[in-house]
Parts: sequence; C-alpha cells; structure tokens
Amino acid sequence: MSCDFMALATRGVQGLHPYEAGKPVEELERELGISNIIKLASNENPLGPSAMAMDAVRAVLADTTRYPDSSGFGLKRALHRHYGVAVDQLTLGNGSNDVLELIARAFLNVDDEVVFSEYAFAVYPIVTQACGATAVVTPAHAYGHNLQAMADAITDRTRLLFIANPNNPTGTVLLRDELVAFLDSVPEQVIVVLDEAYTEYATSADFPDGLALLPRYPNLIVTRTFSKAWGLAGLRIGFAAANSVITDLLNRVRQPFNVSQIALTAAQAVLQDQDYLQRSVELNRTGMQQLEQGFKQQGLGFIPSHGNFITVDVARPAQPVFEALLREGVIVRPLAGYHMPQHLRVSIGLQEENDRFLRALKKVLAC
Amino acid sequence: MSCDFMALATRGVQGLHPYEAGKPVEELERELGISNIIKLASNENPLGPSAMAMDAVRAVLADTTRYPDSSGFGLKRALHRHYGVAVDQLTLGNGSNDVLELIARAFLNVDDEVVFSEYAFAVYPIVTQACGATAVVTPAHAYGHNLQAMADAITDRTRLLFIANPNNPTGTVLLRDELVAFLDSVPEQVIVVLDEAYTEYATSADFPDGLALLPRYPNLIVTRTFSKAWGLAGLRIGFAAANSVITDLLNRVRQPFNVSQIALTAAQAVLQDQDYLQRSVELNRTGMQQLEQGFKQQGLGFIPSHGNFITVDVARPAQPVFEALLREGVIVRPLAGYHMPQHLRVSIGLQEENDRFLRALKKVLAC
Repeated sequence: MSCDFMALATRGVQGLHPYEAGKPVEELERELGISNIIKLASNENPLGPSAMAMDAVRAVLADTTRYPDSSGFGLKRALHRHYGVAVDQLTLGNGSNDVLELIARAFLNVDDEVVFSEYAFAVYPIVTQACGATAVVTPAHAYGHNLQAMADAITDRTRLLFIANPNNPTGTVLLRDELVAFLDSVPEQVIVVLDEAYTEYATSADFPDGLALLPRYPNLIVTRTFSKAWGLAGLRIGFAAANSVITDLLNRVRQPFNVSQIALTAAQAVLQDQDYLQRSVELNRTGMQQLEQGFKQQGLGFIPSHGNFITVDVARPAQPVFEALLREGVIVRPLAGYHMPQHLRVSIGLQEENDRFLRALKKVLAC
Repeated sequence: MSCDFMALATRGVQGLHPYEAGKPVEELERELGISNIIKLASNENPLGPSAMAMDAVRAVLADTTRYPDSSGFGLKRALHRHYGVAVDQLTLGNGSNDVLELIARAFLNVDDEVVFSEYAFAVYPIVTQACGATAVVTPAHAYGHNLQAMADAITDRTRLLFIANPNNPTGTVLLRDELVAFLDSVPEQVIVVLDEAYTEYATSADFPDGLALLPRYPNLIVTRTFSKAWGLAGLRIGFAAANSVITDLLNRVRQPFNVSQIALTAAQAVLQDQDYLQRSVELNRTGMQQLEQGFKQQGLGFIPSHGNFITVDVARPAQPVFEALLREGVIVRPLAGYHMPQHLRVSIGLQEENDRFLRALKKVLAC
C-alpha cells in the first residue's frame, strides 16, 4: 500500500504503547511444554467464582440473544442498596478500566495535564496518552503516593488526577486523614479519580472509604471493580461513583451496551454473597501472612501490601528470576515496565499455590 | 457545588446525545402493568442462543475469576479459519459498537470530517461527536446510501467514511459493482468503514462480501457482529478486519480486556454451529415474507429490507402508533430520531410474534 496509515492516526494514538497483558496459562503451557502452571500474575481471586453468582448467570443464559439493559438499572439499584450511592451517581463499566477510560475521554483535551504517581497503575498513562493529553508523573514516597508532590504538580492545565488506594502494583495505602487533607487542598476544577479496585482487602480502621467522601468533594470520582475480591474478572464489570453532573457526562461517552447481561447479572447476585466476599478477604489475609513469612525466611525485602498481591525485592535483576519461575510452572509479574527492575509482584493464591511459589522462588534464587 | 463540571468536559462530549436504547421488557411490563410483551425493537435473533455456544459458556463459568485472554487468540484463529482473514488483521470488540468507536478514536482529531449518509446507524454520529470531529451527512437515495453524494462530500479534511451494508434502520443494500466502483474512487487516505452487522441476512448473489475486498483496498475496514444472526447480543462481541497497520492502531486503543471470556468462548463455539446460522437466516426469510405480505394486506408501504428487520410507513405520525402498540404488548422502534417520523422499524420475530404484531398494528391503525 502506498498510504502511511500510521501517520493518519491521532498523535496520541501514534505514541500509545498498549497495556501488556499476561499470556493465558494454556498458551504458556504449550510454549514451555509443561503443565500444571499456576498463575499468580494478574491479582485474580484464587477462590473461583461465587456459586450464587454463577447460578444467576446460568439462569439467564437463554436470554443472551437479547441486548443487555443499557441502563443497568437492576445492578444500579443493588449498588445503591449495598453502598448507599444514588442511582444517578453511578456509571457502569466493562471493568473499571472502562470507567477510567470514560473519565479520560469525557474530560481530556489534547495537551491537558493529568497528574499521577510514579509506580501507579499502567492504565492511567495509557488513557492519558490515548487522548493526546500530557502525563505529569510525580515521584513516589516509599513506593506510595507522595500527596504533597501531587498537589505541587497541579497547574492551570491540570484536568485530572489519579490516585489508587490501595496502589497497584506496590500495595501501599493512603490513610483517611492524609487523603482528606489532600482533597481539601485540590482546586475543585481538578477532578480527582480515586481508584479503589483493591479496597475490599484494606480492612484497617483508618483506611478511607471513598464512597463516603463523595458528598464532601464534588470533584471526586471513585472507581470500583468486581474483578478482585468479588471474583468476576472474566466477565468485565466495574463502576464509577461521582456527582450526578459528572455521571451524566460519563454516561454520554459510555457505549450503550458496554456491560454484558451476564456481567450485570453476576454482579447483582454476588453483592448478595457476603460470605463469598468474607472468604475472599480472609483467604487473602492468611495468604499474605504466608508470603511475608516466606520472604522473611528467605531474607528478601518486600513492600507491605494492602491489596491481594505483594511485591518482593529479589535484590537482583528480576526478569531472569521471572523466567526461571516460569520454567518452574509459576507465573508472577515482573515490574520493569513500572521501573522496578528488581521487584516481582505476586498475587496471593491458595495456600498450596503460595507454598509452591515460595519453594520455586527459593530454588530459583539459589541458582 | 460551585464548579460547573459540564464546562470541564471536552467540547465534543458537551454536545453529545447518547444512543437511546430501548427499555428492557421487564421494565415496560412494570410500567404498563401488562405481561407477555414481545420485543421486536432491537433486531435481536428470535431463535434464542445456539445450544452449542451456551454449552461452551457453561463449561468455562468456573474460570470467571480469571481475566480473559487479552489477545483473543483462540477466537481470532477460529475467525481466520472461518473467514480466511489473517489473525493480524483482526480486532475484537465488545460488540461492533466497540470497534466502531476504536476506529473513531484511533483516527479522529478535533475538527476532522466524517462522512456518512442520512438514515445511517446512530452510532456513527455519536462516535464522531465524542471525538469532537465534524459529521458530514449526505442525502440518501431511496432511503439508502447515495454513493455519488458521499464521494462528492470528501474533502481534504475527511478522515473516515461510514457505510452500512445492509443499512440499519432502512434495510437497503449496495450491490458489489456499485460498492467496488465507489471504493475505487475514494482517495486512499480516507478510511472507509464498511459496517456489515447484518451481512449474514443478505444472501443474493450480487451482494458484496467486504472481507473479500480487503486485499484490494488497504483503506477499508470491515466490521462484523455476533449480535444478530449469530445470536449473542447479550454477551457483546464483534470484530473489525483491516490491513495490519490499521489493525495495530485499533489494538493500541483497545482496552486490554475489552471482550469477556464468556463472549470469546461463545463466539468461538457458535462459529462451529452452521446449522444455527442457517436456521436463523431461514427463519428471518420466512418472517420477512410474512411481514411484507401483512403490510400489503393492510395497504401499508415499506422499505424492502435485507436485514433482520423491516421499516414500515404508517402514513401518519408514528409515535402515537408506537405507543398504542406498546399498550398492545408489542415493542417496535420509532424512527423520529432518524428523521423518519412516519416509519416504524420492526424486527423479524418468530412466526407467532410477527402474527401478533400484525394483528396489533391492524387494530391500532383502525382507531
């Protein structure tokens, strides 16, 4: 072809480096010629899905020729009952990735500025770049958000600011008092996105609930996902909660059928399954202790984490360790893309998976 | 709140009027206090889903805690086998709405021009407006695309051009010779999007297959959906096929997990179910005859359609007819939003549904 189609793309998209997802287990097994791989790479819920949610899904499979309810009214009403957020404050997304993107697309013009932290979730730079906006990355403090640096980075051109609490991939948290003091200091025309994908795992009394802060901060958007503690990553569903004007804007950009009927149904059902949530969180708590203890026994440093994963410092280039672990049948996540070349992020698995990972790590590091 | 958040949105989003989806049957039944409503409003497949596809879905429900395969490799390989399009030419979407949006976002800068026809699918103006681009709407010819008018509308600022074949909501088609002559005339730097959502229903020998035209036109993108003849609207899956450079760009903008594992699984399975596809198309053919005959008997004009729907001219304002049909328990689609205030679009249903619609229409028009 004679035409340079790359040159026809928007400047933002030309410079876009897409998110690199991990390979599916089956593909890796084929490539490596091994079986029985365990995947501790994507912060998935190791419990398997809620039986109540899957029963609800099976009951609606016969209706899959029909489009989903575009308004997601049933789920929104359930979210209202569960979280106390009004229906007109809710935007449903195809995973919280989708609502993060809707926020960027609703508010970002070319060359607007977006503030987020070093070591923050990879989706923030991607949605910023896709809109042709400018990422302003602030230095971290102890692998977590440096709120003073973030406040100082705000200019007249700042439109959005992303905070993850707990943060992925480092697992750090901001406590209620420091978050509130920061929100008090942010000008109202800067929209603060508080990404609470891992919030269910952060159980300490001084950990903030973003949804409870919404009435106080009209420029606050809280995002949540059903992919982690609720165990529905494969179905794709998350949501944003914000004031009703912002919500109206996000819903304008939203594709009318962005969430499948299966995902709507499963999410509505799992909200009733408190037992599943509690088991997820408890399994994570004991698995976290298991890994921390294992790292200490191996003399490895780690970043104390409040998510469903923990980031370990292997004190050497981590990529060869990652590859050696793969050959042992354990997939974890190297963090070179996050400028943490000596760290590996490992998701909390079932007890026997954590065991197998620790044994594999010990073996690999002994080489 | 003191801040005008609407004013913070991009200009495009401020002017955006979102797609108005039909209400779910359950909601209407509640509102109207009736039961047994039939929905012929969203061009859904009346057969119910493929049993093969649903069996495949049930088999993977236990894996829904895992993220989908971001690359969609299994489905892409199946699409390659089924359609002969290379894997690196395929972009998977959360419905074809998603790929239409990816195309807009990859290529449209603020103030770029997008050409599409009067009476074209409502998603084209929405994705254009969301990007702040300028819609150039060309007059129709007999409710179908006027290709000469579309060619004449191309300027130096035209980046995209949308064609639906068959067209929704009018059901008109472009034949192979006229489409090819048009594609020959379009400058290569104008990307032509050929939306073939309804292609499986258009069975005449001179109807073009966009996928077969791809090798000849590097500026051609063909979009397809599994929501219509394949019966998977509720699961959300479609795809785009184009040259590999365009495909790379679309995949950069694509959310890494935009398609659920359930949708990937169902689509891959249904491609094996040729019998389901044939039954869908055959049911549509006989249902279309039934409705055409019914309209003729009632002395009503209609636009001959090659989709799974037909648009009838009720020769009076259609909104009250739509509302009266609702009270009879039949949902169809009024087309005032498409500037066709005397037309109603009705999806081809099961024989008894078509019958019930025709009887209700006769009753309502007699008032």
